[in-house]
Amino acid sequence: MNIRIGIYGYGNLGRGVECAIRQNKDTELAAVFTRRNPESVKILTDGVPVLRAADAEKMADKIDVMILCGGSATDLPEQTPALAHRFNVIDSFDTHAKIPDHFKAVDAAAKASGKVGIISVGWDPGMFSLNRLYAGAILSDGCDYTFWGKGVSQGHSDAIRRIDGVKDAKQYTIPVPEALEAVRSGSNPELTTRQKHTRECFVVAEDNADKARIEQEIKTMPNYFSDYDTTVHFISQEELDKNHGGIPHGGFVIRSGKTGAELENTHIIEYSLKLDSNPEFTASVLIAYARAAFRLSSEGASGCKTVFDIPPAYLRAESGEYLRAHLL
Amino acid sequence: MNIRIGIYGYGNLGRGVECAIRQNKDTELAAVFTRRNPESVKILTDGVPVLRAADAEKMADKIDVMILCGGSATDLPEQTPALAHRFNVIDSFDTHAKIPDHFKAVDAAAKASGKVGIISVGWDPGMFSLNRLYAGAILSDGCDYTFWGKGVSQGHSDAIRRIDGVKDAKQYTIPVPEALEAVRSGSNPELTTRQKHTRECFVVAEDNADKARIEQEIKTMPNYFSDYDTTVHFISQEELDKNHGGIPHGGFVIRSGKTGAELENTHIIEYSLKLDSNPEFTASVLIAYARAAFRLSSEGASGCKTVFDIPPAYLRAESGEYLRAHLL
Repeated sequence: MNIRIGIYGYGNLGRGVECAIRQNKDTELAAVFTRRNPESVKILTDGVPVLRAADAEKMADKIDVMILCGGSATDLPEQTPALAHRFNVIDSFDTHAKIPDHFKAVDAAAKASGKVGIISVGWDPGMFSLNRLYAGAILSDGCDYTFWGKGVSQGHSDAIRRIDGVKDAKQYTIPVPEALEAVRSGSNPELTTRQKHTRECFVVAEDNADKARIEQEIKTMPNYFSDYDTTVHFISQEELDKNHGGIPHGGFVIRSGKTGAELENTHIIEYSLKLDSNPEFTASVLIAYARAAFRLSSEGASGCKTVFDIPPAYLRAESGEYLRAHLL
Repeated sequence: MNIRIGIYGYGNLGRGVECAIRQNKDTELAAVFTRRNPESVKILTDGVPVLRAADAEKMADKIDVMILCGGSATDLPEQTPALAHRFNVIDSFDTHAKIPDHFKAVDAAAKASGKVGIISVGWDPGMFSLNRLYAGAILSDGCDYTFWGKGVSQGHSDAIRRIDGVKDAKQYTIPVPEALEAVRSGSNPELTTRQKHTRECFVVAEDNADKARIEQEIKTMPNYFSDYDTTVHFISQEELDKNHGGIPHGGFVIRSGKTGAELENTHIIEYSLKLDSNPEFTASVLIAYARAAFRLSSEGASGCKTVFDIPPAYLRAESGEYLRAHLL
């Protein structure tokens, strides 16, 4: 029998999960839940109901794992613990500083219900975190470096759009090639924020807007831009739609460390992602961990887990025997 | 209390494990076992006994995890199951085709004794295998590529040394840059053996040896060289010792896959290693998994495991809470 998946929240990530389910033959879509009017939501899969988020509990016996596709700011801190009272749940909660609190809330709910919750699944947090953990376990004496991009930062694009006179905008985070090379050389450089990434902004201004003022407001915006070398390009809406319509992202996790009697040998471990679609890739990671949640739950586990707790083989549909023979 | 490690076999890998123990404060070296005369073996750590391999059982209550540092051809198939009758064991068994048989033998022994065995720990098999598993779990529709090098192949260097008239030799396996770029482009190329790697040989010939004949013998050697573009350089012993004394290695595991309603988006996951010392890096992976074996054993687990079965957090000395707060 297939693993029956519920999608809770149908934006870019929810649509990505729906597509990923098609690519994983041991999973099937049971229902999509939305806070909008369900009749207004058109999904890609025939014959699957779109239901009110408030009615999720009624589907408790028809869903093996609920994948939460809301935002980390306000949706997930409420929704993941609430749904863990009735479902095995997975989310991609990505506010790094608040992960410990979120873990506690989901753990309490999932332990009370006897369900499994896996939080902060995706690529950062997620696959990048795993690579930081593995690399640090191997090279005890070393330094970690995480670079993001080239890719679209939704948060930074939103921040530009809130500026007076801006119609639309897209912001790319770009790793500085010289910083990457310095890290790869094994020299363990200390790098400032400015030395690691640059920011490139494509902005559509309102007619007659003061572009010099907009550019100045972007470049001096605290937290978002003021610590970076930022480039601003004003372009037309047509150009933005045509050339900057995608949601690519990616990045690098590099650890450089030493071994040997005199720590005379240097090793570089590098993991990188180059993603055409950030939400679709995140969705693909979510589906793999949904499989793990289902299996853990079937074995009687309960409580909150992260990617750090899941045996890698649990992400795969194949048997241990198959994996050892073909992938080890 | 520290995890007490035994080293079984004291060559390059055993010395690497000894160095790695110094870098991991929660581990300590309990004893080194050798098939040579123990008095002839000088180790780096003061106050630690070097004992006869045959006397290992006498140390059973003084060792938490035995790390086997012998060869995969004849040592480990015998030693790992035999020692699993008395010890938690870790090895770096790397004959990929024989892993299923080795797993069975170690599993039977470890289940009978109630001990834990973790086999095929290192980088390939090991970290490369893990990356194949994770990447394939995420990108169901895709292709895997593994490249090795630039690095020294011990087996190929040995094969050259067996040729008549050869005094010494070192062979480097080198990935073809154009093949790597083609894979990174996401075009999912089909690559022949010759298209993926080249082989470069540094050979010290005996005085008056027929170099043309040696070069011909190398380039036409079945399995080892005949399927590759091979370059042969004749150099002096001094040059070999000076410029080719290290044991560097590394490589790349790349998966390229598609997602989206029409599979219109391409993603590249790449993991790479650049290692100054192959045995020291392998040893560092072994120590991390020794920590996991100890913890699993303390929890009552038994039987054979591989890197696929071990929750990542088990490789780290820090608590789950710490890892979630700092690495996730």
